[in-house]
Amino acid sequence: MTAPLRVALLGCGTVGAEVVRLLHSSGDDLAARIGAPLELVGIAVRRPGRQRDLPVDDALFTTDAEALVARDDVDIVIEVIGGTDLARRLILSALRAGKSVVTANKALLAEDGAVLHAAAADAGADLYYEASVAGAIPLLRPLRESLAGDQISRVTGIVNGTTNFVLTRMDETGAGFADALEEATSLGYAEADPTADVEGFDAAAKAAILAGLAFHTRVVAADVHREGITEVSAADVASAKAMGCVVKLLAIAEREGGGVSVRVHPAMIPRTHPLGAVREAYNAVFVEAASAGRLMFYGPGAGGSPTASAVLGDLVAVGRNTVSGARGAGSSDYAELRIRPMGEVVTRYHLSLDVADKAGVLASVAGAFNEHDVSIRTVRQEGHGDDASLVVVTHTATDAALSAVVERLRGLAVVRAVASVMRVEGT
Amino acid sequence: MTAPLRVALLGCGTVGAEVVRLLHSSGDDLAARIGAPLELVGIAVRRPGRQRDLPVDDALFTTDAEALVARDDVDIVIEVIGGTDLARRLILSALRAGKSVVTANKALLAEDGAVLHAAAADAGADLYYEASVAGAIPLLRPLRESLAGDQISRVTGIVNGTTNFVLTRMDETGAGFADALEEATSLGYAEADPTADVEGFDAAAKAAILAGLAFHTRVVAADVHREGITEVSAADVASAKAMGCVVKLLAIAEREGGGVSVRVHPAMIPRTHPLGAVREAYNAVFVEAASAGRLMFYGPGAGGSPTASAVLGDLVAVGRNTVSGARGAGSSDYAELRIRPMGEVVTRYHLSLDVADKAGVLASVAGAFNEHDVSIRTVRQEGHGDDASLVVVTHTATDAALSAVVERLRGLAVVRAVASVMRVEGT
Repeated sequence: MTAPLRVALLGCGTVGAEVVRLLHSSGDDLAARIGAPLELVGIAVRRPGRQRDLPVDDALFTTDAEALVARDDVDIVIEVIGGTDLARRLILSALRAGKSVVTANKALLAEDGAVLHAAAADAGADLYYEASVAGAIPLLRPLRESLAGDQISRVTGIVNGTTNFVLTRMDETGAGFADALEEATSLGYAEADPTADVEGFDAAAKAAILAGLAFHTRVVAADVHREGITEVSAADVASAKAMGCVVKLLAIAEREGGGVSVRVHPAMIPRTHPLGAVREAYNAVFVEAASAGRLMFYGPGAGGSPTASAVLGDLVAVGRNTVSGARGAGSSDYAELRIRPMGEVVTRYHLSLDVADKAGVLASVAGAFNEHDVSIRTVRQEGHGDDASLVVVTHTATDAALSAVVERLRGLAVVRAVASVMRVEGT
Repeated sequence: MTAPLRVALLGCGTVGAEVVRLLHSSGDDLAARIGAPLELVGIAVRRPGRQRDLPVDDALFTTDAEALVARDDVDIVIEVIGGTDLARRLILSALRAGKSVVTANKALLAEDGAVLHAAAADAGADLYYEASVAGAIPLLRPLRESLAGDQISRVTGIVNGTTNFVLTRMDETGAGFADALEEATSLGYAEADPTADVEGFDAAAKAAILAGLAFHTRVVAADVHREGITEVSAADVASAKAMGCVVKLLAIAEREGGGVSVRVHPAMIPRTHPLGAVREAYNAVFVEAASAGRLMFYGPGAGGSPTASAVLGDLVAVGRNTVSGARGAGSSDYAELRIRPMGEVVTRYHLSLDVADKAGVLASVAGAFNEHDVSIRTVRQEGHGDDASLVVVTHTATDAALSAVVERLRGLAVVRAVASVMRVEGT
């Protein structure tokens, strides 16, 4: 057994505390897997005096994260403080000093992944971040390594547990968004300020990371077209149900025409699709590859224990690399594919229109689709006295063409409102 | 870009031919991912003159696999000939010469994995075998690496596509085993001699590999308790349906009481379980880990392209290791857990009994369970004239206790037959 590998932990919230517990309870096992024992030499926190009830000496806690990272006797740095500015500075100084880093920081990776990867490559250090996407689901390593000999065409993920919980409740109970969110909050599935989740920011950061890995192209969060679930109505969910579908917030990265499009938005998918069965706060990522076919990775997307498990998995990999003098596979962006704007994305659409219930309405509406070469797959009309609702599902069309149709529909006298437009995926 | 890595391919059947095609069509991409181009320098086949229609020079084909493996200019050997004797000899001579090996040979790994791993470790060569279990589903790498910091408690897999197809058809159509197998054969999902699949031998080999990886313990195919699906009846499938379950051939490896049990048998699982939604010839492996929670990996379990994709993924990993002078994570059996006999395994059971329809039957039957401390969860009785059928579902009990109950039931005058006994998992 070689000398211990010394680990510095930055942050001791839910995930950090669980990492400390696992390092303590699984120390022997981890040592056997790595070929060297791990020694936790410092924990950077904001409030060192806080009651934590962890199996470590209080002397390990420090408020000086920068000094901890700079210590000569630190081999590996685990960053779980979150946020971007301080985390970026700490990770960069660790990497530049040749220390390998394990992080769960999706926001930072989605913003500055290229800079971090470059720093790691320059210093010959490892940068691992399995915990940053879909909690404990082993995803980045399969994408980066197992499918390295294949051509991925599309990655479709349910990567935000909060929104999946909300949409699952809406589907199960018929509740509206606000009620379902309230339930999620009361059960601890949504934060007091749920903006990052329900507006799709969290999913967009993960989508950027997934897209970069799947397509060997640099993708940042700002490249991701993002729509949240706040506009999803009980009527949308019911309408999806009527067509054998369920509404999910999807993160989709696809390669087409020499470019990559990355988007996060609610969509209807068939209940028989493997992603259709992903309920509650679970996450899953569905991968379509030329040779491998259709794969799916399923598991808890968040939580202290699952995230800590992913951190420990990375720690074992980095530890083994350190012991053997090797380095893990770095990032690759050799493909440098173009990021395609949302207008070029091709998919199907479900539109719900409030129309006047009179002769000629269908012809006018159909004409609007026809003008922009958007082909209609099915139409369902329901009358309610003077009014009627018209549900149209299209064949594939570009987002630009569909937007033009919607604008045209809004200008038609017979269309009282375009009640909702939702994409239909996985059919 | 460094000098090319020279690859020898052993076998050119469905998988081998697809590997050749992918090496040709994705050459540039693979080179970028590895950091060096790959060069296919020889293909060992039995019939070199056979029409193959592959994008390679005919001069590459040879019948002398041993000479090909021994060539000084070969860096990496891909073994897809299958079978055990010749494959073992070739892989060992490659590894002993310091050449890394990528193989899809589950039978060999399940029989002699320890010998192969030892040879690889001694020579400092890589041995990768992602393609040996569940086709293209990235599974071995996640188990070996991503979850390396966690404690896996149970792995439950649907790892044989043929039997899953047959059971799916039985579930969908109500057909019996023979009819469903005939359909599978006619559609190309079952081989002319389906023994290895329907008797569970294929699944048992995969279970041994999965168990070894999950529990860091040496497990061979002979350690696996194995029951096939030939005895599964339309009545069993209907009875499962009545309780909201579906019958699947499961490969289960679990850790309990300091030991590991590994088994392959048909079982009823709830339709709402993630494995319950795995249909047709798809495979999936459900992993329960202390920290990560419940994970599932889903995808095509067989076929030339998916298997070739897994081989290429391994080839990229081995290629990168060769370029960087590193080695991948080897096998580990440091835990050396005891293999528990089937009698110690604890699960639930579904029993279907043909009984006389008269007073006191239920008391006698219940007495048999009680004698062996097997607690009954539900009983459902259906009368048909003089006869009745009694369906009993138990609480958890050891397999030994359940076997004793069944023997006792067979001795009861009121029990005309124990029509079926099936385990119930995932509840």
